[in-house]
Amino acid sequence: MNITMIRAAAARLSGRARETPLLWAPGLDAIAGRRLLVKAECLQLTGSFKFRGAWAAVSALPQDVRARGVIAFSSGNHAQGVALAARMHAVTAVIIMPADAPAAKIDGTRALGAEVIVYGRGAQDRDALGARLAADRGLTLIKPYDDPQVIAGQGTVGLEIAAQARALGVQTADVLVCCGGGGLASGIALALADTAPGLRVRTVEPAGFDDMARSLASGAPQRNRAATGSICDAILTPTPGLLTLPILTAHAGPGLSVTDDQALAAMAAAFRHLRIVLEPGGAVALAAALWQGATIPGDTVIAVASGGNVDPATFASALARA
Amino acid sequence: MNITMIRAAAARLSGRARETPLLWAPGLDAIAGRRLLVKAECLQLTGSFKFRGAWAAVSALPQDVRARGVIAFSSGNHAQGVALAARMHAVTAVIIMPADAPAAKIDGTRALGAEVIVYGRGAQDRDALGARLAADRGLTLIKPYDDPQVIAGQGTVGLEIAAQARALGVQTADVLVCCGGGGLASGIALALADTAPGLRVRTVEPAGFDDMARSLASGAPQRNRAATGSICDAILTPTPGLLTLPILTAHAGPGLSVTDDQALAAMAAAFRHLRIVLEPGGAVALAAALWQGATIPGDTVIAVASGGNVDPATFASALARA
Repeated sequence: MNITMIRAAAARLSGRARETPLLWAPGLDAIAGRRLLVKAECLQLTGSFKFRGAWAAVSALPQDVRARGVIAFSSGNHAQGVALAARMHAVTAVIIMPADAPAAKIDGTRALGAEVIVYGRGAQDRDALGARLAADRGLTLIKPYDDPQVIAGQGTVGLEIAAQARALGVQTADVLVCCGGGGLASGIALALADTAPGLRVRTVEPAGFDDMARSLASGAPQRNRAATGSICDAILTPTPGLLTLPILTAHAGPGLSVTDDQALAAMAAAFRHLRIVLEPGGAVALAAALWQGATIPGDTVIAVASGGNVDPATFASALARA
Repeated sequence: MNITMIRAAAARLSGRARETPLLWAPGLDAIAGRRLLVKAECLQLTGSFKFRGAWAAVSALPQDVRARGVIAFSSGNHAQGVALAARMHAVTAVIIMPADAPAAKIDGTRALGAEVIVYGRGAQDRDALGARLAADRGLTLIKPYDDPQVIAGQGTVGLEIAAQARALGVQTADVLVCCGGGGLASGIALALADTAPGLRVRTVEPAGFDDMARSLASGAPQRNRAATGSICDAILTPTPGLLTLPILTAHAGPGLSVTDDQALAAMAAAFRHLRIVLEPGGAVALAAALWQGATIPGDTVIAVASGGNVDPATFASALARA
C-alpha cells in the first residue's frame, strides 16, 4: 500500500468517479466554533465513497477474470458501488445482502442491475453461501475494505481533500472520517501523509462500536461487544481490518465516537445548512466536528460526509428531532 | 445586457460563489428516458443561485454607495443571497420579508446577520415601507431579477453549464430552468447563446402560475390570476420582468409547467437518486425533465435545480408521498 497505488487508482477513476465538493456554511462554522469544511462524498455516484474502491478493484482485475463477474457481501453502500462498477464494465455482479439492510440500499443495488441474494442474519452461513457461488460461477470476491486496490480507490478522496484544502489555504487540520472497517480512513491517511502532511486523519465511530478507536489506543485489535444496536448501519464492523489498522496506527490521531442522537442531529444540520442528504453512518464525522470540538485542535476542521443512502422514514425522523 | 457583463460578473464571483456540480444518476436517466444532467445550485452558498446575482449586484456598487448598505424585498432566497453578499462586503443588509415566508428562509436570513423586517401581506404597503427605509438610511435597493447586474450574476450558471456540458460531449440539449421573474433563465439564456448555441433554455413554472410561458407564447406580458396557491413559494412572481421577457423571447424555447405534486415527487427523486435537498420551487425543472419528456426533444436534457431552502415538515411530506 503506497501513494503510487492511490495515484494509479485516481488515474483509472478519472472521468468515472466524481470529484466531490468541499462545502461550508456560515451556520455550521458557528456551531463548530471554527472553520468547518465538509467533503460531500454523499454526492458520489451511488451515494457514497464506496464506488471509488469498487471501481479501483474491478478495473484492476485481469480482463479474463473480470469477465466472469464479481461478488460482494454488503449491507448496502459497498453493494451499490460494486454493482455500478460492474455494470459500467459490462460484467455480472452478485451481491449478498442481509435481510435487515435498509430498503433503500437493497432496492438501489437491484436497480443497478446486480443479482441480489438476501440472507437472514444467523439463519444462513453467509460466507459458505458466497464461497459456493464464487466457486460455481468463477466470480471474484471484492472485499469491502481489506483489499489494497479498494483502499487505494478510497484514498483518492484524500488526494482531492489535499488539493481542495491547499486551494483554500488550509495547511493544518484534523480530517474526521466515518469509520467501519477503516478502508476510507486508511486510504485518506496514506494519501494525506504524502501530499498534505499537516492534515491528520481521525476516525469517528458510533458510541459502543468504537473498535477502531480502542484498537488505536491500545495498540492491538479490539472487537465490538455487539454486532447491531446503532442506527449507523453502514459502519458497524466488528473489528478493524488487517490492512487498515496498521496504516491508521502509523498515520492517524486518536479516534472519536458520537451517539446516535448526534448522528441524527448532524443529518438535520447538513439538510439545513448544506442541502445534502446524509445517512446516519455517513454523518458521524460531521457530528464530531459540530459537537465534540473540545477534542479537536486548530482553527479549521475537515469532516468527510461519506454516504447518503437512507430510507425516507429514517431521514424524516432525523429532521423531526432537530 | 450582454456576455461581457456576464463574464465580468464571473470574474467578480470567482473564489466567492461555488462552481456547482452537474450531477446524474442511473435511476433518474431511467425515469426520464434519456440522459438527465442536474445543475445542483441548491449547493450554492445560501442554498440557491440567488447568491450569484446578489454578489454581482453588491460588488458592482461604487464603494461609497455600498458602504451605506443595501435593502431587498424577498420571500427568502434572494433575501439570503443579499444578506450573505452584504456580510461578506461588511455592509448592512435590510431585508423586507412577508410573514408567510417559510420559517427556514426567515431564520436563515437573520442568521446571516441581516436586519429582517416582516410585513403582513395586504396589511402594509411593502413598497412604501421599503422606499421610506431606503431614503432615511441611504440604502440601495437590490432587485430580485429586473437588474442587469443581477441577471449577469445568474448568467454565470450558464457559463458553468456550457463548460460542463462540453466536457461531457453534450452539444445539443434543452436546459430547463425554474422560473419566477426570469432572472436565472434570462441570464443562462444569454450565456448559452454566446458560449453553447446548441443548448436552449426553457422556463418551467408551477401550473396556474405560468405567466412567463403564456407571455412567451402570446408575445405580450401576461399576469397570473392568483398571487398565492402553489407550494412553490420561491417562484410565484405575478408577471415577467421588464428586462427578462425580451431576453427570453429572443433566446428561449416554449415554456413548461408542472403540478405541485410533480414538484414534490421531484424533491423525493432528488433525495433518493442524487442525495440533494430541493425546495418545491427549485424542483420544478427536474420535475419537467422526469415527467414531461414528451415535450422535450433529444437524447439529453439538462435541469437546473435552483434552490434547497425548505422547512423540514414540507420536505418530510414530499418524501412521504413518494
